[in-house]
Amino acid sequence: MNDKITLAHGAGGREMEEILQKLIFSKVENRLKKIRGGVGIDIPDDGAAIPIGEGKYLVVSQDTYTVKPIFFPGGDIGKLAACGSINDVLMMGARPMAMLDGILVEEGFSINTLQKIIDSYLTILRENNIATIGGDFKVMPKGEIDQIVISTVGIGIAEKLIIDNNVKEGDKIIVTGSIGDHGATIMALQHGIEIESEELRSDVQPLTKLMLPLIERYSNQIHAARDPTRGGLAMTLNDWANMSETVIILESDKIPIKPQVQAYSEMLGIDPLYLANEGVAVLAADPSIAEEIVSQAHKLGYSEATIIGEVKKSEKYPGFVLIKSEVGGLRILEPPMGEIIPRIC
Amino acid sequence: MNDKITLAHGAGGREMEEILQKLIFSKVENRLKKIRGGVGIDIPDDGAAIPIGEGKYLVVSQDTYTVKPIFFPGGDIGKLAACGSINDVLMMGARPMAMLDGILVEEGFSINTLQKIIDSYLTILRENNIATIGGDFKVMPKGEIDQIVISTVGIGIAEKLIIDNNVKEGDKIIVTGSIGDHGATIMALQHGIEIESEELRSDVQPLTKLMLPLIERYSNQIHAARDPTRGGLAMTLNDWANMSETVIILESDKIPIKPQVQAYSEMLGIDPLYLANEGVAVLAADPSIAEEIVSQAHKLGYSEATIIGEVKKSEKYPGFVLIKSEVGGLRILEPPMGEIIPRIC
Repeated sequence: MNDKITLAHGAGGREMEEILQKLIFSKVENRLKKIRGGVGIDIPDDGAAIPIGEGKYLVVSQDTYTVKPIFFPGGDIGKLAACGSINDVLMMGARPMAMLDGILVEEGFSINTLQKIIDSYLTILRENNIATIGGDFKVMPKGEIDQIVISTVGIGIAEKLIIDNNVKEGDKIIVTGSIGDHGATIMALQHGIEIESEELRSDVQPLTKLMLPLIERYSNQIHAARDPTRGGLAMTLNDWANMSETVIILESDKIPIKPQVQAYSEMLGIDPLYLANEGVAVLAADPSIAEEIVSQAHKLGYSEATIIGEVKKSEKYPGFVLIKSEVGGLRILEPPMGEIIPRIC
Repeated sequence: MNDKITLAHGAGGREMEEILQKLIFSKVENRLKKIRGGVGIDIPDDGAAIPIGEGKYLVVSQDTYTVKPIFFPGGDIGKLAACGSINDVLMMGARPMAMLDGILVEEGFSINTLQKIIDSYLTILRENNIATIGGDFKVMPKGEIDQIVISTVGIGIAEKLIIDNNVKEGDKIIVTGSIGDHGATIMALQHGIEIESEELRSDVQPLTKLMLPLIERYSNQIHAARDPTRGGLAMTLNDWANMSETVIILESDKIPIKPQVQAYSEMLGIDPLYLANEGVAVLAADPSIAEEIVSQAHKLGYSEATIIGEVKKSEKYPGFVLIKSEVGGLRILEPPMGEIIPRIC
């Protein structure tokens, strides 16, 4: 057996699941869940949840941002770190309240550039009414880390958790924006392809204004929610189908993908459904309310929000995601495998 | 002005305080503290605290561990990451409950080595009854990060917070173990000095068994508590003197320092009071109870615990730390300046 960590182990797909299973999950007993009804690492979700009394949960999410390049059309690593953790907290059904950040920077890094990145991070927090309550700052000698890495901790309070093992037969699958924008942008930049920022830009944004009203009104009808980052829509939906032992059927012509994202993806040889998103939510919603959620999202400014498929009882394909082409054929949408793109987020 | 980040900016001393003030603290309004009585970043402490009702506080602490070498006499980066965050939570007066970890590893890193590090991390959590509730795993391409970095989030519950701006005149300063062991060990290794592990070893250890009973019995009499990591005892005490506008007077012959730590420190040209500790607590305790705390610490197995000084009303030296030599002279113990040693923790 090969003893080396590969980029695929960090790509958010099957290899990552396997190595985490081997190294961590198999060795941890989720005391928290057993004892107090929270969410720990045995449910792959956007964060963990700890009951704090009065029917409330504290949601905590941690992520480390390594995106390269650190500035890109639509944002930078600071904005990404803020939005990523805000969105993870929201996807658990929680209102983001506070954040901590650990900044790890290379000796010789420009202080002006660092100030720009931190300003960009703090601006998102301020605009979303989230307190900066602590963190950590370290410098590594030149050559021991490439530029900058930011690790953030998002903290929020939920009254009703949205836990991703709760997808039900009949649920509609909603996406709130077009797919693959962030991944296509970073991938093109990493391949040295020159892009016009008007043409291709990351979707990185906090989903607070969309999700807080939806959580307030529909927290019982939204059965699962995730922001599909590494591994993209394909990873999120495969996780959901797998956990609920259902089959998820998508209609390919309903999935919003910008023509330029499609074009760059084809040029780079990748399906946009595997590309990271940083400002899109995927929801599994009760069919009675799905249309209403979509029209609420439109009213809140998310004009691309749409139903892209539904959850069915698994017969032949338990745990699979199928995708219906425009001419009617069905193909399996596999979970991501291999190294798609390092340092995407 | 030089626009470059230097190692000194990450060393935990004055330069770090200055750059964080400029880049972050000056731009953040601590909403949390103003609105709800918690602890945010305007008090330099081991973590943040959020009131969660019934007089309780949720304490959250984040740190990123970059120690080099990753294995050293007494521990490894996994054990360090676990102990560091456990101790930060304890020093706020909280009982550690749960932890998240973000692992960032270099492509090509040995899976066996990673397993050893994670096992070492999980063992400390298991032994201290702390749940592993989530985290993140990323791989960076070869050469873009040196081996492995671990970012951890410690979560605990406090009934009475120990906040470090609460040092009072008359308080006794207690240390619970000998000073400088971790820093001297790592520094010697980084300088390529061969050490026998019996001779010099890191003090890295969780302080749960010491601090939980002390917190339970003396949380009103312990006015401040910190584990003096980067910047060492000198940094912690300067912070305290500064915040309380008192003067702290230490008796140099009372400070426990192992002869071999003293010898290596002299060889490396550094005062052990500036070296990082990873298994020692510094307490400022009410004089009425200080002796009792020391004898409790002895009973709990911390035989080196001792009173090393006291807090006095500032007259000539507000905010200073003074150290009395064995022959009676007083010198100022300056806060750390410059780059002491990178990747110490």
